[in-house]
Amino acid sequence: MTITLYDLAGAEADRRFSPFCWRIRMALAHKGLPTEAVPWCFTEKETLAPTGQGRAPVIVDKGKWLSESWVIANYLEDAYPEQPAVFGSSSGRSVTRFVQGWTDTVLHVGLIRCVVLDVWQHVHEKDKAYFRKTREERFGAPLEAVQSGREERLPALRESLLPLRNLLGAQSFIGGLQPLYADYIVFGAFQWARCISPFKLLAPDDPVFAWRERMLDLFGGLARESKGYPV
Amino acid sequence: MTITLYDLAGAEADRRFSPFCWRIRMALAHKGLPTEAVPWCFTEKETLAPTGQGRAPVIVDKGKWLSESWVIANYLEDAYPEQPAVFGSSSGRSVTRFVQGWTDTVLHVGLIRCVVLDVWQHVHEKDKAYFRKTREERFGAPLEAVQSGREERLPALRESLLPLRNLLGAQSFIGGLQPLYADYIVFGAFQWARCISPFKLLAPDDPVFAWRERMLDLFGGLARESKGYPV
Repeated sequence: MTITLYDLAGAEADRRFSPFCWRIRMALAHKGLPTEAVPWCFTEKETLAPTGQGRAPVIVDKGKWLSESWVIANYLEDAYPEQPAVFGSSSGRSVTRFVQGWTDTVLHVGLIRCVVLDVWQHVHEKDKAYFRKTREERFGAPLEAVQSGREERLPALRESLLPLRNLLGAQSFIGGLQPLYADYIVFGAFQWARCISPFKLLAPDDPVFAWRERMLDLFGGLARESKGYPV
Repeated sequence: MTITLYDLAGAEADRRFSPFCWRIRMALAHKGLPTEAVPWCFTEKETLAPTGQGRAPVIVDKGKWLSESWVIANYLEDAYPEQPAVFGSSSGRSVTRFVQGWTDTVLHVGLIRCVVLDVWQHVHEKDKAYFRKTREERFGAPLEAVQSGREERLPALRESLLPLRNLLGAQSFIGGLQPLYADYIVFGAFQWARCISPFKLLAPDDPVFAWRERMLDLFGGLARESKGYPV
């Protein structure tokens, strides 16, 4: 039975750019679960009404609606234990929360200031006012001002990747020999940026660049084939 | 059979302050392995000669010498599989490397500049010149200058703990319901600071403070009973 994923899309329905949706796209592919990734726009809140909230990712599986990427990933792991594990174990799941904490509070915070205007340029026409208003309220500044100076901030952003770079000196993925949900969490951030921005985040000789290449190649190039900019 | 741990000590033999040794002290206690933690000073390099290097932690188990905390932790996990697991699983072990990467490249880097002069004040008389010379070369500045201004840097240090704080909103330990090696890695940094510095790193209402309290209570108060300053 196919799982429906409401997947944030831009003005072009095949431009899918939510970092949180990418976590789930990759997790669904990892578990080998048939998926229909339905394009969804920021302001289509009513579509997600059964979840009692208005943000993607949302999945519908056998009539059951679920929201919030961590909740969905845990559901998939527990509902499909025979399929390849995305956490690996209960301890893997617990420690993965630290990777999520770092991604949400460090990586996303650095990245959003490099791409937020690019996001606005790619969102659906009907979402543009909503996106600008909510983000400008959050930042207390026009999107143009938030993104301005990203070239100067790039060294600090790259420096902030040290925990990941450090690990990649010893193993191919955060999950070890194979990628796990911890990898999808971090990768979601890079895929978000790649899908809506031409800005070059990583130097080609950075081990993080090579890791991202491996991630782009997974599942028959699922992420690489998705509409975006060259890395 | 008792495992010998060469454990970095200060001028007082019972002041044990290496963050890397604390990772192993806690891991040994977690696995319930009888341990003799022998005081060792920075300049007693010849004592560790069988390891081909000159830094603690070093363990000797059944005549086998091992150095480097990650190597030791992995050895203990694999050599004593019947004892409680410190990684939980192979996936837990892999993802724990990310926590170690963050601790080594973010947490330690922030902390050392808050306590390095305090360390110097507590090291053994015979280590003082060595410690000052090696650290001043690393920082390119006198220890007094490195530590100066720590009050002003404290907000940024506390901010850098967001990945841990974020996780503690959802679970008691990085390991989940129980502490795991990932917790010992991060805790080692705080215990290092507590053992040699009166500087208050954490606000009492910080969830990280409460986590540290739980860590100090583990194994009959192993870390809390060790000579140090009140937190």
